Amino acid sequence: MSVAEQIRNIAAEARQASFAMARLSSKVKNELLLDMATALENSAPQIIGENLKDLAAGQQRGLSAAMLDRLMLDEPRIKGMADAIREVAALPDPVGEVTGMWKRPNDLMVGKMRIPLGVVGIIYESRPNVTSDAAVLCLKSGNAVVLRGGSEAIHSNLAIATVLKAELSKRKVPEAALSLIPFTEREGVTEMLKQEEFIDVIIPRGGESLIRFVVQNSKIPVIKHYKGVCHIFVDASADFEMAREIIINAKTQRPGVCNALETLLIHKDAAEKFVPFIYTTLAGLNVELRGDERFRKFAPRAKEATEEDWSAEYLELILACAVVNDMDAAIDHINRYGSLHTESIITGDYGNAQRFIREVNSGVVMVNASTRFSDGNQLGLGAEIGISTTKLHSFGPMGLTDLTTTKFIVYGEGQVRP
Amino acid sequence: MSVAEQIRNIAAEARQASFAMARLSSKVKNELLLDMATALENSAPQIIGENLKDLAAGQQRGLSAAMLDRLMLDEPRIKGMADAIREVAALPDPVGEVTGMWKRPNDLMVGKMRIPLGVVGIIYESRPNVTSDAAVLCLKSGNAVVLRGGSEAIHSNLAIATVLKAELSKRKVPEAALSLIPFTEREGVTEMLKQEEFIDVIIPRGGESLIRFVVQNSKIPVIKHYKGVCHIFVDASADFEMAREIIINAKTQRPGVCNALETLLIHKDAAEKFVPFIYTTLAGLNVELRGDERFRKFAPRAKEATEEDWSAEYLELILACAVVNDMDAAIDHINRYGSLHTESIITGDYGNAQRFIREVNSGVVMVNASTRFSDGNQLGLGAEIGISTTKLHSFGPMGLTDLTTTKFIVYGEGQVRP
Repeated sequence: MSVAEQIRNIAAEARQASFAMARLSSKVKNELLLDMATALENSAPQIIGENLKDLAAGQQRGLSAAMLDRLMLDEPRIKGMADAIREVAALPDPVGEVTGMWKRPNDLMVGKMRIPLGVVGIIYESRPNVTSDAAVLCLKSGNAVVLRGGSEAIHSNLAIATVLKAELSKRKVPEAALSLIPFTEREGVTEMLKQEEFIDVIIPRGGESLIRFVVQNSKIPVIKHYKGVCHIFVDASADFEMAREIIINAKTQRPGVCNALETLLIHKDAAEKFVPFIYTTLAGLNVELRGDERFRKFAPRAKEATEEDWSAEYLELILACAVVNDMDAAIDHINRYGSLHTESIITGDYGNAQRFIREVNSGVVMVNASTRFSDGNQLGLGAEIGISTTKLHSFGPMGLTDLTTTKFIVYGEGQVRP
Repeated sequence: MSVAEQIRNIAAEARQASFAMARLSSKVKNELLLDMATALENSAPQIIGENLKDLAAGQQRGLSAAMLDRLMLDEPRIKGMADAIREVAALPDPVGEVTGMWKRPNDLMVGKMRIPLGVVGIIYESRPNVTSDAAVLCLKSGNAVVLRGGSEAIHSNLAIATVLKAELSKRKVPEAALSLIPFTEREGVTEMLKQEEFIDVIIPRGGESLIRFVVQNSKIPVIKHYKGVCHIFVDASADFEMAREIIINAKTQRPGVCNALETLLIHKDAAEKFVPFIYTTLAGLNVELRGDERFRKFAPRAKEATEEDWSAEYLELILACAVVNDMDAAIDHINRYGSLHTESIITGDYGNAQRFIREVNSGVVMVNASTRFSDGNQLGLGAEIGISTTKLHSFGPMGLTDLTTTKFIVYGEGQVRP
């Protein structure tokens, strides 16, 4: 069988298995996940053995030390993966939840009930822990899952998937409910993306180039985010100390992630006092500031920002800074250059806080808080399956319920339509 | 400017206008819609004049009498369009609704708020009333809308759109919030489907061939349904009189629509009594029955069903009929041949009712009710913008809230991430 045929078979069997997954009770799913966690810990020696093959191949291919570290599995990391599974087992099961019910004039009872999406495809890069993290979120929400990890981690991923699949078959759940595409060629991805008959949604996890490749080649709907160009707007009425603490946190606590601050907007009435203050603070923390003309008037040592800076996702200690006339100008700037990820206003003004919340249409909109909270776990969703900066299906950080949809349920007593 | 450039401009201006639309208060939107309704009525003579051009062209092109009737506008039909607008004005505004709010351990208040999708593209066929029906649903939900109607109705559609746009500009809302693509060539559709930068979702309304064309050519997510192969399963414990009334209603009340019954499944323990009973009833109503072997055992005059019958959307007085061993077999049949549209069980058994509701994963799942209720209006959503048989974003009949998404809103007091 060709690679294309094998991938089609994997997807078709996943679709078939999804019917069985959708019927599993919460109790069975939770027991399954807990057993998967134990099995992973018990299989640590084999998994580490397979991981060594990936590490050796990676060294030969000249992967960077950082890449090799992301790839590496040891006992504590496998324990961490098992604990992450246990956390998912402890989350409430969204499937079967009735999100509303109402009575029609003809006494029909109409409601909406959460059901699994069906088959979820996850395409990811080098970290092998995603294999178990993503798989158990899909299984807990009653879906079948087709995984396609990075080629650098193929031995580790296959070892992890094999351990998890064995727990499925012990409970007579079709093993095809969890599959890992075993081909490392790019064809493995492109063929997977053609299985729109069997896979309901693709969630890519990785860098912008992976995501663009997936979007370009997919016949299946993709839930995606390309980048996070997060803004903080310091209003005229902001508490400057609070603003400083939030900006330091948002820019420097972990600059390499998508919810880190990339552009700072400052109300013109705050500029004279706040610009020198924040410039001194951030420069002292080795942040490179790139300002527009009005910002540099009060911080002459800041670099000059160019048009590209306003849409840059630096992912390092660089911050674009602009002074704006008012909140409307701030919102216009965000609409023009933003990535629909996360924006925060620092303000003491009730009306401006409410208006910012209402009018900024990013996935996460905050008042007086650090953009670093824009994360499924931090927002209270439990484990995060991904983040969406497009508005269809899900918008913002996504948890278990984002792996479900709702169907209408109707209880009648013989009603017919007149 | 080329057609492609003009369409790109229309879409880009719609994106810009969507920011203004998203900020409109419910009050302003409702007043706008009510004025649009009045303006349509007042402009009836001009609209009818333009409609006559379409009718004349249609006659020349040899459109059928049924097609010409769908195209025709007169005073009562324009009054009907105006009344439909008033109904939408009276619906609650989903935008700004907070669907949930919770407190995090660090006292952050986190919630979800409904916001418009942005720019909605509607592609439809000959009925000119869709121009106003779809437009006002999009506007009420705070979206900008780009319409592309059938070429047969181009004069009527332009006349209606012109009247509606005039009301936008009277209120200083950018006219680009409502656009109609003025090109009748197919290029008008294909270029529109490339504007993924500016249009957030495409909703096609029409026959299966239109929808397949849109899906094949769109870079923009499409919310769609191809067909409705709706099932009724008559359980062993069904009240046969109730089953008969529901089946007659579902099959014959309006056979040409997507929520009409197409396949009847009968529990084997009910077959001996129910099959002759329903055969006689339906044959007397000029329904052609096509049965499997076990059905024809008790209804020998029924035609023989072929494999194609199980997935046929007849849209006429034909019904495929099969006898199944039990509810599992019925559900398997639905999973295999169904279209994820609407299924109903007729049963007196509490456990089977609950299990059918839980385990059948179609957009609408019913107990003891006619499939003909599978409609946004009948289910209580108010006006319907369409129906989705794919699970992402919306599943089943769609109303105003399906034209929105939710963003996270976060109220803080200076929290930073440790």
